[in-house]
Amino acid sequence: MHTLDVALGARSYPIYIGQGLLGQDLLRRHVRASQALIVTNETIAPLYLDKAKASLGDLAQVDTLVLPDGEQYKTLATLEKIFDALLANRHSRTTTLIALGGGVVGDMVGFAAASYQRGVDFLQVPTTLLAQVDSSVGGKTAVNHPRGKNMIGAFHQPRAVLIDTTVLDTLPPRELSAGLAEVIKYGLIRDADFYRWLEVNMAGLMQREPALLAEAILRSCRNKAEVVAEDETEQGNRALLNLGHTFGHAIETATGYRDWLHGEAVGAGTMMAAQLSADLGWISQADVARIGALTRAAGLPVAPPPGMTAEQFRSLMALDKKVMDGRLRLVLLKAIGEAVVTDQFDMQVLTRLLEKMCQH
Amino acid sequence: MHTLDVALGARSYPIYIGQGLLGQDLLRRHVRASQALIVTNETIAPLYLDKAKASLGDLAQVDTLVLPDGEQYKTLATLEKIFDALLANRHSRTTTLIALGGGVVGDMVGFAAASYQRGVDFLQVPTTLLAQVDSSVGGKTAVNHPRGKNMIGAFHQPRAVLIDTTVLDTLPPRELSAGLAEVIKYGLIRDADFYRWLEVNMAGLMQREPALLAEAILRSCRNKAEVVAEDETEQGNRALLNLGHTFGHAIETATGYRDWLHGEAVGAGTMMAAQLSADLGWISQADVARIGALTRAAGLPVAPPPGMTAEQFRSLMALDKKVMDGRLRLVLLKAIGEAVVTDQFDMQVLTRLLEKMCQH
Repeated sequence: MHTLDVALGARSYPIYIGQGLLGQDLLRRHVRASQALIVTNETIAPLYLDKAKASLGDLAQVDTLVLPDGEQYKTLATLEKIFDALLANRHSRTTTLIALGGGVVGDMVGFAAASYQRGVDFLQVPTTLLAQVDSSVGGKTAVNHPRGKNMIGAFHQPRAVLIDTTVLDTLPPRELSAGLAEVIKYGLIRDADFYRWLEVNMAGLMQREPALLAEAILRSCRNKAEVVAEDETEQGNRALLNLGHTFGHAIETATGYRDWLHGEAVGAGTMMAAQLSADLGWISQADVARIGALTRAAGLPVAPPPGMTAEQFRSLMALDKKVMDGRLRLVLLKAIGEAVVTDQFDMQVLTRLLEKMCQH
Repeated sequence: MHTLDVALGARSYPIYIGQGLLGQDLLRRHVRASQALIVTNETIAPLYLDKAKASLGDLAQVDTLVLPDGEQYKTLATLEKIFDALLANRHSRTTTLIALGGGVVGDMVGFAAASYQRGVDFLQVPTTLLAQVDSSVGGKTAVNHPRGKNMIGAFHQPRAVLIDTTVLDTLPPRELSAGLAEVIKYGLIRDADFYRWLEVNMAGLMQREPALLAEAILRSCRNKAEVVAEDETEQGNRALLNLGHTFGHAIETATGYRDWLHGEAVGAGTMMAAQLSADLGWISQADVARIGALTRAAGLPVAPPPGMTAEQFRSLMALDKKVMDGRLRLVLLKAIGEAVVTDQFDMQVLTRLLEKMCQH
């Protein structure tokens, strides 16, 4: 087992990474009183809910809640079901919520924990690669609004993140690819060595070689933990983690959070950010080709969905959380392994890119 | 004009108290970018919305939202209307929300500001006595759940609190009394001098003598600011501010947040806490009589609503936020001017009190 620390002073917490961790007593150690609520979804419940419950051993009160599966349920309405379950079972301010699932479950349970009685403990047990390498670490929690993704939320750090790599055995292929989009992101924004390692090992990762997956998760979480420790509430460099996300969120919102997985939208969005960086003359077209090859090798789309228009992108991107006082800010590449957050780019270049990429 | 400081390090902010402040440029000074959304209710809008809007002067974008008036609308559903208005008008992360209204508007707008894009600025412009002396100061924000009051919320401090005492001229008599319940509270829990001042001046306060109201607001806010500065997130002594509130919340929940104002429920709840303190032998029956006399002089009820049962109290109080690991904690009096938060009391004495007070 590897243990990483997210260094945030009094809010610091461990990330445990290893095989079969859900069968150990790690969760129990981080429940501070006698109550817990495990929240999961219909896909994960039959696979791992009993195991998670058993791992809490002697705890006096362990309740469970099973939500529908899918980004389209990451709403205030579903959040209310979590509050209903907490209140119906009389959970007090010392309770612990446990998010057992992918990014949707983790984001919602985290926001429920941030808001229930103005803040209770929660633990992340991510069951998708995407949640393991990205969304479970760093305390960003949220639900979606019909007009925009993650528009309603809070910064609320978990007490621990438990990454059992065994659960990836049951992960559908599309979900594996979606997670790899965020893995590639770390290489692109700040870790050129890791990016080269991914180019060498992508085929093995797609074949789910356990040692390679463990290495990719560890290096991704280490990058994430470093960025979060430096900038918990995204006043500065944390925004680099959003490479491809402004384009990606527009795709997700335009398609109603139904057709594309978040990671797939990020994959296509990263290609758009890379191409824009090249069109601005910041990276070479050869760099874009390299990124395209790795993205395809990870089984990810490299262009927006057919039928989506440049006008949809412009309208939805204007609502992005990175807009500051009317100026659109994007994460763009200066090199493979180096990104910047900037509003200093020619909007006409962006407009031409959107027209070009939406013509297919 | 008086200015008090709520000392919370980087989150410190001023409380401005004075006549006619809404006509000055104080609000404008605390709006950091070019967008603002003023949220108010149907009662306050015709009285003060134009004035608040005008005070923002040259700001590029000022939107307004008028909500229905009443504690029964302090829900996730109404909160969603605030998010809808923010997104429909493309408010970015640098926007400022302005809560123009009583405690319900302030609590909801505060929670909307805490959650919108994971946190934006907000300003409090309280228009009821209760909001001016209590709920607008200290950063507690929340909405209600059908099963419990303020169960969903956040700690999120405003950037400034603007208390224009002129607005009390239009306050209905019941609302004035409701505010006085919280004023009396400060005397009871930590300020015996202020309590005696209130005994002398209650008749003048009920006649709305401006100088007396201003003095009561200033001394209340000073007490509140000191408590909050010592214990922002209620790990300890901040809970003293909840004197009468555990009983009061049970009354509000049992009556569907419709019949009694929050301050009225707190008035009756404070009498119940005082009588319990006497039944436990901590204060004298003469103290209880003094508190009863002041409560009546403020036009407040001194007993729970007819028809409410001891069993309802027991059930609803078990869900209170101050319950810790199964033990009910209450704020009780050791003297007039001194309160404690404790779970060290005989539950049978509480049971007998509930039976006795619910027989009328």
